[in-house]
Amino acid sequence: MFMRVDQLQAELPAPKRRDPNAAAALQELLGGKYGEMSTLGNYMFQSFNFRSKDKLKPFYSLVASITAEELGHVELVSNGVAMLNNGPDDDGDTGDGGDISGAPFEDMKDIRLAAAFLSGGGGAAPINSNGASWNNDFITSTGNVVVDLLHNFHLECGARLHKLRVYETLTDPTGREVCGYLLVRGSVHAHAYALALKKITGVEIEKFLPTPNIDLSKIPESQKYLAEGSHRRLYTWSPKDYREIAGLWGNGEQALPGDPPGELEVVEGMPDGGKIHQLTGVPSAFTPDYAPEEMFEIARKLTKKAR
Amino acid sequence: MFMRVDQLQAELPAPKRRDPNAAAALQELLGGKYGEMSTLGNYMFQSFNFRSKDKLKPFYSLVASITAEELGHVELVSNGVAMLNNGPDDDGDTGDGGDISGAPFEDMKDIRLAAAFLSGGGGAAPINSNGASWNNDFITSTGNVVVDLLHNFHLECGARLHKLRVYETLTDPTGREVCGYLLVRGSVHAHAYALALKKITGVEIEKFLPTPNIDLSKIPESQKYLAEGSHRRLYTWSPKDYREIAGLWGNGEQALPGDPPGELEVVEGMPDGGKIHQLTGVPSAFTPDYAPEEMFEIARKLTKKAR
Amino acid sequence: MFMRVDQLQAELPAPKRRDPNAAAALQELLGGKYGEMSTLGNYMFQSFNFRSKDKLKPFYSLVASITAEELGHVELVSNGVAMLNNGPDDDGDTGDGGDISGAPFEDMKDIRLAAAFLSGGGGAAPINSNGASWNNDFITSTGNVVVDLLHNFHLECGARLHKLRVYETLTDPTGREVCGYLLVRGSVHAHAYALALKKITGVEIEKFLPTPNIDLSKIPESQKYLAEGSHRRLYTWSPKDYREIAGLWGNGEQALPGDPPGELEVVEGMPDGGKIHQLTGVPSAFTPDYAPEEMFEIARKLTKKAR
Amino acid sequence: MFMRVDQLQAELPAPKRRDPNAAAALQELLGGKYGEMSTLGNYMFQSFNFRSKDKLKPFYSLVASITAEELGHVELVSNGVAMLNNGPDDDGDTGDGGDISGAPFEDMKDIRLAAAFLSGGGGAAPINSNGASWNNDFITSTGNVVVDLLHNFHLECGARLHKLRVYETLTDPTGREVCGYLLVRGSVHAHAYALALKKITGVEIEKFLPTPNIDLSKIPESQKYLAEGSHRRLYTWSPKDYREIAGLWGNGEQALPGDPPGELEVVEGMPDGGKIHQLTGVPSAFTPDYAPEEMFEIARKLTKKAR
Amino acid sequence: MFMRVDQLQAELPAPKRRDPNAAAALQELLGGKYGEMSTLGNYMFQSFNFRSKDKLKPFYSLVASITAEELGHVELVSNGVAMLNNGPDDDGDTGDGGDISGAPFEDMKDIRLAAAFLSGGGGAAPINSNGASWNNDFITSTGNVVVDLLHNFHLECGARLHKLRVYETLTDPTGREVCGYLLVRGSVHAHAYALALKKITGVEIEKFLPTPNIDLSKIPESQKYLAEGSHRRLYTWSPKDYREIAGLWGNGEQALPGDPPGELEVVEGMPDGGKIHQLTGVPSAFTPDYAPEEMFEIARKLTKKAR
Amino acid sequence: MFMRVDQLQAELPAPKRRDPNAAAALQELLGGKYGEMSTLGNYMFQSFNFRSKDKLKPFYSLVASITAEELGHVELVSNGVAMLNNGPDDDGDTGDGGDISGAPFEDMKDIRLAAAFLSGGGGAAPINSNGASWNNDFITSTGNVVVDLLHNFHLECGARLHKLRVYETLTDPTGREVCGYLLVRGSVHAHAYALALKKITGVEIEKFLPTPNIDLSKIPESQKYLAEGSHRRLYTWSPKDYREIAGLWGNGEQALPGDPPGELEVVEGMPDGGKIHQLTGVPSAFTPDYAPEEMFEIARKLTKKAR
Repeated sequence: MFMRVDQLQAELPAPKRRDPNAAAALQELLGGKYGEMSTLGNYMFQSFNFRSKDKLKPFYSLVASITAEELGHVELVSNGVAMLNNGPDDDGDTGDGGDISGAPFEDMKDIRLAAAFLSGGGGAAPINSNGASWNNDFITSTGNVVVDLLHNFHLECGARLHKLRVYETLTDPTGREVCGYLLVRGSVHAHAYALALKKITGVEIEKFLPTPNIDLSKIPESQKYLAEGSHRRLYTWSPKDYREIAGLWGNGEQALPGDPPGELEVVEGMPDGGKIHQLTGVPSAFTPDYAPEEMFEIARKLTKKAR
Repeated sequence: MFMRVDQLQAELPAPKRRDPNAAAALQELLGGKYGEMSTLGNYMFQSFNFRSKDKLKPFYSLVASITAEELGHVELVSNGVAMLNNGPDDDGDTGDGGDISGAPFEDMKDIRLAAAFLSGGGGAAPINSNGASWNNDFITSTGNVVVDLLHNFHLECGARLHKLRVYETLTDPTGREVCGYLLVRGSVHAHAYALALKKITGVEIEKFLPTPNIDLSKIPESQKYLAEGSHRRLYTWSPKDYREIAGLWGNGEQALPGDPPGELEVVEGMPDGGKIHQLTGVPSAFTPDYAPEEMFEIARKLTKKAR
Repeated sequence: MFMRVDQLQAELPAPKRRDPNAAAALQELLGGKYGEMSTLGNYMFQSFNFRSKDKLKPFYSLVASITAEELGHVELVSNGVAMLNNGPDDDGDTGDGGDISGAPFEDMKDIRLAAAFLSGGGGAAPINSNGASWNNDFITSTGNVVVDLLHNFHLECGARLHKLRVYETLTDPTGREVCGYLLVRGSVHAHAYALALKKITGVEIEKFLPTPNIDLSKIPESQKYLAEGSHRRLYTWSPKDYREIAGLWGNGEQALPGDPPGELEVVEGMPDGGKIHQLTGVPSAFTPDYAPEEMFEIARKLTKKAR
Repeated sequence: MFMRVDQLQAELPAPKRRDPNAAAALQELLGGKYGEMSTLGNYMFQSFNFRSKDKLKPFYSLVASITAEELGHVELVSNGVAMLNNGPDDDGDTGDGGDISGAPFEDMKDIRLAAAFLSGGGGAAPINSNGASWNNDFITSTGNVVVDLLHNFHLECGARLHKLRVYETLTDPTGREVCGYLLVRGSVHAHAYALALKKITGVEIEKFLPTPNIDLSKIPESQKYLAEGSHRRLYTWSPKDYREIAGLWGNGEQALPGDPPGELEVVEGMPDGGKIHQLTGVPSAFTPDYAPEEMFEIARKLTKKAR
Repeated sequence: MFMRVDQLQAELPAPKRRDPNAAAALQELLGGKYGEMSTLGNYMFQSFNFRSKDKLKPFYSLVASITAEELGHVELVSNGVAMLNNGPDDDGDTGDGGDISGAPFEDMKDIRLAAAFLSGGGGAAPINSNGASWNNDFITSTGNVVVDLLHNFHLECGARLHKLRVYETLTDPTGREVCGYLLVRGSVHAHAYALALKKITGVEIEKFLPTPNIDLSKIPESQKYLAEGSHRRLYTWSPKDYREIAGLWGNGEQALPGDPPGELEVVEGMPDGGKIHQLTGVPSAFTPDYAPEEMFEIARKLTKKAR
Repeated sequence: MFMRVDQLQAELPAPKRRDPNAAAALQELLGGKYGEMSTLGNYMFQSFNFRSKDKLKPFYSLVASITAEELGHVELVSNGVAMLNNGPDDDGDTGDGGDISGAPFEDMKDIRLAAAFLSGGGGAAPINSNGASWNNDFITSTGNVVVDLLHNFHLECGARLHKLRVYETLTDPTGREVCGYLLVRGSVHAHAYALALKKITGVEIEKFLPTPNIDLSKIPESQKYLAEGSHRRLYTWSPKDYREIAGLWGNGEQALPGDPPGELEVVEGMPDGGKIHQLTGVPSAFTPDYAPEEMFEIARKLTKKAR
């Protein structure tokens, strides 16, 4: 079972301008082969299909708990995409759409993924940066622990490469923050899968890291997360389950050489989250539509009743 | 952000026999157009993309909190699929695969979705009962609250029809329990979206329910959930967020006519869950593989360390 | 613009038994690469995209008018699929679904394309015999008349091969009649595209026919259509347009050597159609559902009002 | 069976300039989830698969007859796409392609959907505005009348939102006219499905309309169609069938509040159509190719023969 | 550039009976995520896209030369599929199709992937065992040597698991020979990619092998290939290029522990191949069709002329 | 079996500038319906599935040998794509990526197919110019020789049209050379399939050529290949097999009317190839990554060892 908390894993700065092509680039990290829907889908189905869960508790718990974190990554990237598609909020969600006969969204027909506006109203969707859909082909869930973990390790390395390249195309702080945060957390996952594989096979596969061969110290947006030790922490993402991951992460194992030094540690529960950005409606795009003020008033009354 | 609890929303009885075609039927409820990946995907992306979240708190909270429940539905159906593919556990996960030269899985080449065994080792995957992948085409997230809620209401009605038909093909208790439970919870969601739409538009759209026109009293496997009042409860699936759904669900609103009577109520948090079935490995199918006993021993030691 | 007439191009005999795998085979002729959705899609989009329509009237008219016939082919195959999925009608659409707790459709989980029942309730869908969807990849519409006509000629030859093979798998009269009829009409289309190409290039490409190399005299179900001269007739499928196809079809051109001899002729409008089979609802499958008798009564009253 | 008339449902003004990105935006209304291929595909297959057709005549006739109209919508949008890709006609279809060695179509490599030129020669295709193919995933045909009609109602509401957004991106009169016309006719369909559902369930679901919440009076291009009463008319699109739709549409039912008032009426047959735009060939793009003048001369002679 | 030799990499024993479901299982090894189309596609595009080819000669040569071998693997599996679909040859390709009116292929409508017969006439296609198409989603070609090689290593491990499972479902000698051969050669590739990675990173990743954890000594059909030392040989698959792979394979490196011991060696060129099975035509399935004897006679004369 | 030679079929001039949209246009010739992956896939699977190979030696050999050439076409187009994505080499593959915090690839988020950079690092992939994946739908392999050859003839004509249009969009010499070369070789294939069909059916289908109706004399980049007689040569692409194609190509058959005159001839083996362009790594894009100089040094040592 899953629970939800109305926060983001990292607070995203507001975008400085509407940049749908930046949003489209970020989509690669959402619905691409090496995007967050893929890490989510792989770990989620692997955890459902995991064999001999009790006997392999630390390994099962690793895959199961990271699943919950990946959900938050999907959420984070999606928020980034929607924010970049929307641009700076100007509290414009009141009033009706006004006169729409003058092609108010003419510029939207030239953006890279026009359906993001035409169909999604500026929202995120599980597609990659070329508009191709995420699908089952991106999932490996064989039931063989070694094959699956090896796949996951390769997936995190590939994901890191994709995050770096997307980052290199972005100038807006919103998307850069998404990348800066995910690079830190993705490194943790790669490291964790490496340690899990090492426990089983004895192979020091963590020595592949970092792949690509660039330290996170080079990414300004990652520094605050490194400073708080995020790269050394694995969360259980659970009120009381999955603590067995401490068998893999911790016990004297250390941070990767290029990162700020320190011992790896398991934290029960989850990190403090950041505020979810208000995504202001755009009446002329029919979001959220109906007579907005009337709908807001209805919502206000219902909220009062709910207390 | 999301958290995970190592339990299923409903405890599933062990399958009486291995029935991969029953598992394949159940896949329709996982990866089909009206399956749980679709309800999850729609609500998840709608909640990410929701406009004017604060001003529309009860509506946003409804979509956001049900997202968490749908994750558990995906988990439940997936467990059902894997259990039916696996059959009764016989604690056979020790020893090596033995002599595999005698085509020990000859029968697997005649099952409807052979890749479930050949690739998935008997696990679940986000595909429908014909083996076609779930994908972005199943998602509607327009940012228009009325269109999205109307879509969701139709989706839950369609999902109910699909659940009923899958149920009608199953004899094994595992799959039937999945359907019996989901029929109750799906009704709650359809009801909730109907009430949300009614608050905005005044249209008594809940009168469409139940669609299809059959009372849950006809489904033996649903009775225990009706008896405990599950059909009247909406959970927040959160430690402390999303309480505003009480503006839509409750306040004197009553259970649907064909269901056991009573007032609708919001429950903070989530229901008691059931045990996740141990999915015993099958050495001859290379699950979980490596030298199993050795890997179990490694896991045992790591678990001890973790305490 | 298009009009519709509530008849089938050929009257289909009722199926003798429910045969979902026969229906699945027939799906190849509906949604496969060489199925009717493909002939429809190709000619429809080619006719929309046709360049210099007035200056190339006979060629444009050929593609445009056959489009209308292909719509009827899609309809015919779809009816065949639904009839085979349904089996003999037993006027069972009254009453409610009764007790569905005994897995009344257990056999449906073993049919080749289970979603045909689980999702489609026994209806047809634009997929092939393996369950893969029809899509844009099957369309060639280049705007180059020679390339497009050559494609169409090849398409009809390939379609003939597929029809023959599907025919060879069917024992039920419903599906066989579909094939017997389509083989005759498909031959007409192949012949017509060949003549069109010959007019432009001088190449006697009609000498490829029949491909595969089997005379329709070998197909019992085709005889009645040959006897009435269907193989020599091209319809305009229009009240008054597309008569220019007579420039290509007729003018002394003769039936193909292996077919009953005679001159090719253009017929304005369309042939007499056959009755559409009543597809009786199945209450336990929730078709057409609601309280059926009540809904029938509502419909009866509305029908009376409509007069 | 279907017939075809060589006219468009609405006459489209010639484009003022070649605008492939506008054509690409319009593709959302052709091959998108809420585009005309979807409305066509849903109603077409629902009508083929419709259960108990005779007993449910008004409902069956509604779905069956609108299918024919949707074909014309697919045709209309396709014409719009091709016209925008082509730009103003300059009767340039004579002569050969001339010297093509100077990259005469260099600008085509920068348009959003380059395959529209490279493969389609500027024609329309069943894809959405991101280039993703239309497919079976967009079809709901369950055989359950309530579920299918509810789906259709939601589909038309969603389609209206998409039409509005596409309209908001277009400056060229061709594409705007397509939207203006379709908005009126789409409203009719939404209204008709709402009335059908109301007859069965009693729910006044038509009160959802208009969704999105904007009157057609705000769309200049819709005015001429409103003025002639198109919003109050449902056509049978048939020489003599489907008259039973008058049980649902008419009988004192009125136009929607925001539209010009008046009683709903059924019109047998179809509306007067408009001229289909000549889509002039472009020799340098090899449309229609061969030696054009020679081919035109051949066609001229064949046309003469046909008379 | 590529050359072709009219032989198979391994000679396949004739099938004992027609077994389309065995052919369908084998399709997983052709068009599945871990099938030969994937290994081919990955290495082929990686070799085309390889950066700094000269400076990284041994690594480039490894990927480039294995590409050629994978082509032969695709060929081998395809031959296996076609042979199993066809069954024992009975030299039945003469004569015409005879009377086909008695549903001579009725059994073909019940096979798992009916399109294999209906469309492919019993041939192989790039689809997996569920009939889903191979596609670009299965390719990783990032231009980063470490990421790509790591992907390839994981791919070969996963492929080995899939081969083992397919093998476990097959009783016919044709399919088993395919698996027995590919298991040996796949191990070579996994080993080679491991050594390449070790040279760059120092990580002894070859210690993961064999994954799954079963020695090839357990597979009777692999013994002849092990006996001839195939597991120790890497071919250049080229008349004179790619010799630099000897920098990675050889130089004292040894066979994997569970395999027959010996030094790894590079062989220039390619191994002796086996005869390609004659795939006898089936006139009643219209293969190869036309009047077969006449076509054979034409071919005989043309062959004579060619000398 | 296949062998590989480390050369391109034609030497490509270096690109004058980085032009990812030109690369994207070229992708239509790689992964589009009428691209080289399609010609490769069709002939490859047709050759595997070919019936009665011995009795139809010249026809089988034609399809089998052209398969090898098509592999080289896929290679050629892929090289062209990668070169255009990369731009002029500046030997920049040494050093690390430097400071990447300044969005060094900002322009990459605006290219038509952004995933080409984000995921592929500038490499080619089996997708079309809209980013849609190549797949099994593009393959026709029926086992019927006439249908398959007719398909192939149409495919080559369609491919020629696509090549011409792509050519018309390109200004850079790299992509133009790819087109100029492929136009010559594609004509040979169309001609060869025409002659094969003529031998069987007697129809002079080669008279369709050239389609589209433009002589290669109009394409400057084709002249050098015409001058050396490439349009009259069919290679066996094999050390000693497939010589029977001389029964179809040669024997007095002449070049097509619009091409330089001369007799058709079969050449054993393959043509002289051109140098493969060094595709310099880009450290800031993490190609080839690791510490490049160190990796180059490792490779240098391994290369030395290999000798």
